[in-house]
Amino acid sequence: MSQSLTIALSKGRILDDTLPLLKEAGIEPLEDLEKSRKLIFSTSDPDVRLLIVRATDVPTYVEHGAADLGVAGKDVLMEYGSQGLYEPLDLKIAICKLMTAGPVNTPEPSGRLKVATKFVNVARRYYAEQGRQVDVIKLYGSMELAPLVGLADKIIDVVDTGNTLRANGLEPQEMIADISSRLIVNKASMKMKHARIKALIDLLAAAVERHA
Amino acid sequence: MSQSLTIALSKGRILDDTLPLLKEAGIEPLEDLEKSRKLIFSTSDPDVRLLIVRATDVPTYVEHGAADLGVAGKDVLMEYGSQGLYEPLDLKIAICKLMTAGPVNTPEPSGRLKVATKFVNVARRYYAEQGRQVDVIKLYGSMELAPLVGLADKIIDVVDTGNTLRANGLEPQEMIADISSRLIVNKASMKMKHARIKALIDLLAAAVERHA
Ligand SMILES: O=P(O)(O)OC[C@H]1O[C@H](OP(=O)(O)OP(=O)(O)O)[C@H](O)[C@@H]1O
Ligand SMILES: O=P(O)(O)OC[C@H]1O[C@H](OP(=O)(O)OP(=O)(O)O)[C@H](O)[C@@H]1O
Repeated sequence: MSQSLTIALSKGRILDDTLPLLKEAGIEPLEDLEKSRKLIFSTSDPDVRLLIVRATDVPTYVEHGAADLGVAGKDVLMEYGSQGLYEPLDLKIAICKLMTAGPVNTPEPSGRLKVATKFVNVARRYYAEQGRQVDVIKLYGSMELAPLVGLADKIIDVVDTGNTLRANGLEPQEMIADISSRLIVNKASMKMKHARIKALIDLLAAAVERHA
Repeated sequence: MSQSLTIALSKGRILDDTLPLLKEAGIEPLEDLEKSRKLIFSTSDPDVRLLIVRATDVPTYVEHGAADLGVAGKDVLMEYGSQGLYEPLDLKIAICKLMTAGPVNTPEPSGRLKVATKFVNVARRYYAEQGRQVDVIKLYGSMELAPLVGLADKIIDVVDTGNTLRANGLEPQEMIADISSRLIVNKASMKMKHARIKALIDLLAAAVERHA
C-alpha cells in the first residue's frame, strides 16, 4: 500500500543542500523550484510532494500535520520550541553558529543591555540562564542595522562567514549554539506512516553519511 | 539650529510611493535605494537620513527612537499596536484591504475555525469581537498556501488586485479594514524636534493633497 508524503522546505541554502540528499533517497522535483513562484511541487515519486514555505514556517506546517516531514535550521527549531515534533536526523547542512554580536571594541553599557533579534525566545532563555537582565527587542530582518542606529547594544543572529557582521562594523562575541538543519517529522505521521517514513529517514541518513 | 532626522522606510510599494512625497518635501536619496544592499542612506538634505528596514520592523525603530519618523502600512500598525507612536498623517499610498479569505464555494467547517495569518493580534481581536472561537496559526509568509494543504480553513491577509488569492483557488470573504500607509512619529522626537517635524508633516500633507 502506498502512502503519500508531504515535505516542507524553504528556499535558499536549505533547499540547495537538501535536494541532493533527497535525490539520493529517490526524490527529485519535476521542475526547478528556485525559478518557480509555485508553492507545491510534484516529484519523481508520485507519492511525494514538496511544499515551499518560509524557513520560520516549516515547524508550523509539520507540527500541525500539513506536512509529514520538513527540513528546518536548528536556530528556527530552538526559537519555535520543538516539543510538538520529532527531530530524528541531523542533515549536517546549512552549518553556521548562533551568536551574540556587537560593535567592535565597544564596552558593554553600564545599564540594562538591549538585545535586538528575531530569536526572542532563544535570547530570553540565554540571558536568563546567565542571570542577566536584558531588554529583548523583536526584529524580523536586518538585525545588523540595530546597533548602528542605537536600537540595541547587541544582536543575536546566525553567523556563517562573518561578512555581514564585518561589513557593519560588528564582531561575533558569545557563542550560543552550533547550527545545522534537521529533518523534522509530525508525531501522528510517524505513527500512521511509520514504515514509509522510517525507510526515508534511513535513506537520508545514508546520504548524510556519504556527504560527511 | 538644524536638527537631524532619521526616517524608517521599507522596500517595495511603500518605498516606491513614499519617495515622490518626500521629494516634494525636499528630501531625495543620493543613490538608488532599491539597487543598493546598504541600509542607511544620505539624502539631499544633509540633516535627513533614511533607514531601510523590514515593513514589520518600522514601528519598532520609531517607537524606540532609533528613527524619528517612519512610514508603515495600517495593517502593520494594527498588528503592532500603535499606542507607543503618533500617527499624524494618512499618506494615502499602498492602498489595499485587510480581509479574510478561504477556498471558493466551501462552507465553513462545523468545528472550530482554523485561521492562518501573520496578523495574529488582528485575527484574535476580530474574531473575539464577533464572539467566535477560532484557532489562530501564526505564519510569516505565503498565507495563501495554508488552506490548500489543510493547515487552516481561512487566512487573513492584505488583498490588492486579488490575483494572489485567485491563483490559489481562494476568494476574499469578510472585510476587516481599509489599509493605506501612515506617517508615524516617535513621541519624544515630536516634543524635542517639534518645529522640524511639524514643518515636514505639513509639507507631506500638502504633497498628499496634490496626489489625491
Ligand atoms: O556570516 P555571513 O556569511 O555573512 O552570514 C550571515 C547572514 O546570513 C543570515 O541571513 P540569511 O542570508 O540566511 O537571510 P536572512 O537575512 O533572511 O536571515 C544572517 O541573518 C546574516 O545576515
Ligand atoms: O491581491 P494582490 O494584488 O495579489 O496582492 C496581495 C499580495 O500582496 C501581499 O504580499 P506582498 O507583495 O506585499 O509581499 P509579502 O508576500 O512579503 O507580504 C499579500 O501578502 C499578497 O500576497
